[in-house]
Amino acid sequence: SKTYRIALLPGDGIGPEITAVTVQVLQAVGIRCDLNFEFSTGLIGGIAIDETGSPLPEVTLDLCRSSDAVLLAAIGGYKWDNLPRSQRPETGLLGLRAGLQLFANLRPAQILPQLVDASSLKREVVEGVDMMVVRELTGGVYFGMPKGIFKTETGEQRGVNTMAYTDAEIDRIARVALEIASKRGNRLCSVDKANVLDVSQLWRDRVAALASEYPDVELSHLYVDNAAMQLVRAPKQFDTIVTGNLFGDILSDIAAMLTGSIGMLPSASLGASGPGVFEPVHGSAPDIAGQDKANPLAMVLSAAMMLRYGLDERDAADRLERAVTAVLDRGERTGDIMAEGKTLLGCKAMGESLLARL
Amino acid sequence: SKTYRIALLPGDGIGPEITAVTVQVLQAVGIRCDLNFEFSTGLIGGIAIDETGSPLPEVTLDLCRSSDAVLLAAIGGYKWDNLPRSQRPETGLLGLRAGLQLFANLRPAQILPQLVDASSLKREVVEGVDMMVVRELTGGVYFGMPKGIFKTETGEQRGVNTMAYTDAEIDRIARVALEIASKRGNRLCSVDKANVLDVSQLWRDRVAALASEYPDVELSHLYVDNAAMQLVRAPKQFDTIVTGNLFGDILSDIAAMLTGSIGMLPSASLGASGPGVFEPVHGSAPDIAGQDKANPLAMVLSAAMMLRYGLDERDAADRLERAVTAVLDRGERTGDIMAEGKTLLGCKAMGESLLARL
Ligand SMILES: CC(C)[C@H](C(=O)O)[C@@H](O)C(=O)O
Ligand SMILES: CC(C)[C@H](C(=O)O)[C@@H](O)C(=O)O
Repeated sequence: SKTYRIALLPGDGIGPEITAVTVQVLQAVGIRCDLNFEFSTGLIGGIAIDETGSPLPEVTLDLCRSSDAVLLAAIGGYKWDNLPRSQRPETGLLGLRAGLQLFANLRPAQILPQLVDASSLKREVVEGVDMMVVRELTGGVYFGMPKGIFKTETGEQRGVNTMAYTDAEIDRIARVALEIASKRGNRLCSVDKANVLDVSQLWRDRVAALASEYPDVELSHLYVDNAAMQLVRAPKQFDTIVTGNLFGDILSDIAAMLTGSIGMLPSASLGASGPGVFEPVHGSAPDIAGQDKANPLAMVLSAAMMLRYGLDERDAADRLERAVTAVLDRGERTGDIMAEGKTLLGCKAMGESLLARL
Repeated sequence: SKTYRIALLPGDGIGPEITAVTVQVLQAVGIRCDLNFEFSTGLIGGIAIDETGSPLPEVTLDLCRSSDAVLLAAIGGYKWDNLPRSQRPETGLLGLRAGLQLFANLRPAQILPQLVDASSLKREVVEGVDMMVVRELTGGVYFGMPKGIFKTETGEQRGVNTMAYTDAEIDRIARVALEIASKRGNRLCSVDKANVLDVSQLWRDRVAALASEYPDVELSHLYVDNAAMQLVRAPKQFDTIVTGNLFGDILSDIAAMLTGSIGMLPSASLGASGPGVFEPVHGSAPDIAGQDKANPLAMVLSAAMMLRYGLDERDAADRLERAVTAVLDRGERTGDIMAEGKTLLGCKAMGESLLARL
């Protein structure tokens, strides 16, 4: 039987509860697929600040580096919102992405037939939506230098960040996106602001050049403002989207919100080699933390992405995803996706139902 | 009677048709309100490129500077899409904004009761939406230096833009937004990415400091990814939004698309002094140009914004807006907002109906 070392980063808020369910579910699927998971837990985010003074202790990064994959739950909370940026939970997350060189963020947005009505959009607009947003995650304005708040000659302050991409940074994310598109619907939409930004012009040119190596993938380009509009107007037109770090932050959240159930959405962050990080799209929901109300399904689906994209264990991934479909088909719902006529379950009970489905 | 000099910039595509209607309507309202409009026409965008080689000839900028207000229709088209950026229609628009120092872009997004069903969102989600997006228009990553595509030491290319704001740039747009919020619902939401960007941290701090001078206005802050989600999830929560150039480009387009009828939406771009530019949010729609199918209402509503915000002629502005409401109440629609049981009108016929309502 194969053994995988999994770093668990439960983080803050509902993180520990949904991690507990996910571990149980992984162990159960491991037995069925003859896989053995060795879990080790690390600190990140607010709890890491409280216990070590740093949102990403070096030992956590070491743990992740020596693992086969990282499962992260959620970070942050009101408590740490007013600390200086270097000591905020988010800074730990950015440090993890940079430290593991996770340049490719995969964020699927899929409308599950059982949850169509959760969307704020009309049924006919969103039914069947199934797209993948591929976001560059270690470059662009998130990391570009120079940055800071500087004094000008006149004594004024000037806040500065640098939106920059090199050829190589664009090429590697474009290649990931083209590969993914070629395994999905063969359509890739690259999003930029090339009518205004030089960095986007380079982005567009490189993506177009690389796409010529993938004759089966149909490439289109949209400006980011138009892409945001099209996501709201007619989201079914999209198959795979590729874009930079900041545009990807915004567009992947719009895509997520189209489903109306971000408690269901997983993500994967991958590097060229080394472990990937798999985490739900939703936050740490401090207001319901510790009350057994959290929805564990996004983290379970993140574990499925880990199996599929990180460990290449497709059979186990399929089983997890089928278990999630099965609980939804049974009408079982946590509070965030509750609807008339359905059965309300807490986080643990949802976990138990998943185990029974496996 | 008062006389106003209005610079008309019909631009490309459907621009000339909707400008013609708007001029007639303005003349009619002028007679009723004892206002006299002197119209002069200038070249901008694709047609300016074709006739002069530049998307914003100096003589156009001079004409605008010596006018009381500028009415712009729309620019751009497939024909000019592959020119180098310095010769593209958009560059003329950016030059106009910079040349007239139009730092404040006002983009109202309102769901008209007659057109609720045009939205891709559910009726209960969008009914009653009425917000104003105040976008900074002459700073941020659109204009920040350094910018360009540079060669690195390794011979690679690096595309660079600079996202920067100074104290003074933030203060002046924050003040405009606070004034507007105080004349609307007294709620202002400032949007940034202060958890990641230094420039946003400065933005947030300055907006908060200025807001303390407006005790009646309730200030909130959202990160841009969350703001985009909230616009899709529950747009009624917003009254006035203030944000930087790039975030404003994206968010104002989302807000516009929520209405489902961007053929109805006007905008205003204002400086500290001098003429403002008033223009519809929609584009030049080259595919229907010259076919008498365009919707002139966004440009007519832009003329109303010109009367209200540019010339302080509120009575005339009210009359224009009432005329638009009246044609909609009569069930008259252009193709872009056509629905079952309504009467389809061309651009000219819509203009005639407006004249009859005035
Ligand atoms: C928490 C924040 C730094 C982060 C980002 O902006 O990348 C988040 O919004 C995300 O999308 O993962
Ligand atoms: C055409 C383009 C340069 C422009 C912008 O990005 O500002 C447009 O999208 C707008 O919103 O007016």
